[in-house]
Amino acid sequence: MNILVINAGSSSLKYQLYDMKTETAIATGRVERIGMDSSILTHEVAHQPEVREVSEILDHTTAVKKVLDMLTHRKFGVLRNISDIQAVGHRVVHGGESFSESVLVDAKVKLEIRRLFDLAPLHNPAHMMGIAAVEENLPHVPQAVVFDTAFHQSMPPTSYLYAIPTVLYRKHKIRRYGFHGTSHDYVSQRAAEYLGKPLEQLKLITCHIGNGASCTAILHGKSFDTSMGMTPLEGLMMGTRSGDLDPAVVPYTINKEELTLNEVNSMLNKHSGLIAISGVSSDMREIVEAMNDGNDNAKLAFDMYTYRIRKYIGAYIAAMDGADAIIFTAGVGENSDVLRKAVCERLTFFGVQLDEAKNAIRSPEPRKITTDDSAVSVLVVPTNEELLIARDTYRLVLTKLVGQGVETEG
Amino acid sequence: MNILVINAGSSSLKYQLYDMKTETAIATGRVERIGMDSSILTHEVAHQPEVREVSEILDHTTAVKKVLDMLTHRKFGVLRNISDIQAVGHRVVHGGESFSESVLVDAKVKLEIRRLFDLAPLHNPAHMMGIAAVEENLPHVPQAVVFDTAFHQSMPPTSYLYAIPTVLYRKHKIRRYGFHGTSHDYVSQRAAEYLGKPLEQLKLITCHIGNGASCTAILHGKSFDTSMGMTPLEGLMMGTRSGDLDPAVVPYTINKEELTLNEVNSMLNKHSGLIAISGVSSDMREIVEAMNDGNDNAKLAFDMYTYRIRKYIGAYIAAMDGADAIIFTAGVGENSDVLRKAVCERLTFFGVQLDEAKNAIRSPEPRKITTDDSAVSVLVVPTNEELLIARDTYRLVLTKLVGQGVETEG
Repeated sequence: MNILVINAGSSSLKYQLYDMKTETAIATGRVERIGMDSSILTHEVAHQPEVREVSEILDHTTAVKKVLDMLTHRKFGVLRNISDIQAVGHRVVHGGESFSESVLVDAKVKLEIRRLFDLAPLHNPAHMMGIAAVEENLPHVPQAVVFDTAFHQSMPPTSYLYAIPTVLYRKHKIRRYGFHGTSHDYVSQRAAEYLGKPLEQLKLITCHIGNGASCTAILHGKSFDTSMGMTPLEGLMMGTRSGDLDPAVVPYTINKEELTLNEVNSMLNKHSGLIAISGVSSDMREIVEAMNDGNDNAKLAFDMYTYRIRKYIGAYIAAMDGADAIIFTAGVGENSDVLRKAVCERLTFFGVQLDEAKNAIRSPEPRKITTDDSAVSVLVVPTNEELLIARDTYRLVLTKLVGQGVETEG
Repeated sequence: MNILVINAGSSSLKYQLYDMKTETAIATGRVERIGMDSSILTHEVAHQPEVREVSEILDHTTAVKKVLDMLTHRKFGVLRNISDIQAVGHRVVHGGESFSESVLVDAKVKLEIRRLFDLAPLHNPAHMMGIAAVEENLPHVPQAVVFDTAFHQSMPPTSYLYAIPTVLYRKHKIRRYGFHGTSHDYVSQRAAEYLGKPLEQLKLITCHIGNGASCTAILHGKSFDTSMGMTPLEGLMMGTRSGDLDPAVVPYTINKEELTLNEVNSMLNKHSGLIAISGVSSDMREIVEAMNDGNDNAKLAFDMYTYRIRKYIGAYIAAMDGADAIIFTAGVGENSDVLRKAVCERLTFFGVQLDEAKNAIRSPEPRKITTDDSAVSVLVVPTNEELLIARDTYRLVLTKLVGQGVETEG
């Protein structure tokens, strides 16, 4: 079965085509600048040069059509016919309290995602455009949605409630949701496999450190607490997001700088974090480079960033009263040995003993970077959210087909 | 030497008269409802019944006059003459970055406290009224100011900076200041004495849990990090304050509920925390009572409250890479064995072994509530902010007198 995985943004659309027999992405690509006359489609197939096509793509329906054209292209394609796509899986950022797992798309699901627009005004409307665009192009192909928030729906109220008037939760659903759920879920499963222990017996802390960043306490396979909140702003310091902050700073800043609500949101989400403190970049690679060149502000940004990861790790060890392993994943977590070292070398009280040689190794495989006698293991586990979306979609479609008595070949 | 300690609020004024030979409070009291025609002065002297006097007290100058009258009262007083008061020490909430220690009041100090009105609009103006009222009544008596923030001025930038545009720090001094400094300072000194070790060699976590609440990581005697921020809103859940919150909740709530900035501040500071979640009370004693009576919301509030203290303890152990002792103080911290048990019994991974019998003992003395083989000690240390204010005032006045060549009798 071939599954097309789509991550639709307001002006972009990323895709991966998965062959589920081998669980490999046979083609990947993205459409950028949707809505402009010079949109760019970038398409890549293993062992072949990247293809780039510039054209006018004014909406998501056209974007999906272009992707399907490319996937079945005589020269650059990987499919004979678009009917070789048996299902489509979408990443959806916010599932609110309505979705604690992935589901097949139907009218009710679409209505519910629309109801959640308020909670994710930048993301959910774009995802809906992606779903509608697939419907128009592939009217008979089943679609599934996989939510960033779903994995965290297992959190207890002590973790997800804010200590504010409860009417705000009842009326506006203001609570902690958490994000990056697909990634935290995926790497915790991989970590358990690597450790050779049942996930249900483990206490894990997963650190998804990319441009966005979040930590999750995973108790016996379920999200117990996570650093992102109602929105992806809370928690760790990020590339351009502030993370934790005295809530009183928000009205104070609005007042002092005469900002609108949109402006303060934009300031905290797009002009804070690493870029604000370093003045250099929101990209950890450039921060480390500048730091090594003696830039004090870059060093300060790096130190704040890693200090806050350490504090969350400590908080989540307390939350679960223990941890078997700490897992680093995503762009920065997988690739920055400097960051991992800065975080781990001052966790000795918890029994973390970093092995610097192992930490320096680069590999696409899960690996341990602590010594064999380290009381708490630290692992690097590459994430693959697209694969998990493909797997969930595959499972849902298969279950439905089996329910309908259709024979499948897997 | 007799020192009068004053804590002036906008409509109240608390006082303690200290005899510094014995370091005892020989009289304590408070004036409430200043500005109304039925103000109440309550005055207490050891081993005597409390005195209550209702009169019209329209301003702080009159309030101080009434206090001095009472202290020299033929029947209820403890002094022959007001000239027996050799110095006055004031509690001041916000010292910003200007004050890292207590100082004697002069024109420059008063100007600086006024400059900080913006950062503590509810507190600093009231403190200034208290200082002016003493000046009018006791024009020749030296005054000192002791700041809630001063102890935390030792924090490194990684702890005190927020990851927001640095212009907000440079222009508006938006940063973490921390509060309850006098208490964290006092109990850490007492804890070191109790443990019989130099404070400079200890890693301590002090939990000041009263109606307001904050945790501090004290590394080698200096505040290294603390949970309250630019204002006392950040950090732990409190009686009526939310504590930590996704900063994005603030603009979201302003928008959804059409609130003004004052209204959202009031909501987060006065109508959140224990009272919001429990619907019962902001007082931990009443929460515990309701919880024991089977009230689920009170139980939830208690669980959220203690869970967050645990997370901060874990975070600060990570921050310092270790802890020798955790110290509970202030109203709830000193008196609620139920709270201490809930926090400590799930810190076993850190080596905390609670001794339930010791935890149940009530005493005005510092004491250990963990077993002798507990890797991390947990202490209960009663706080005494007024005594520390008296001590600082005494020391400053003495130093000045010595500098002037005046002989003192201590």
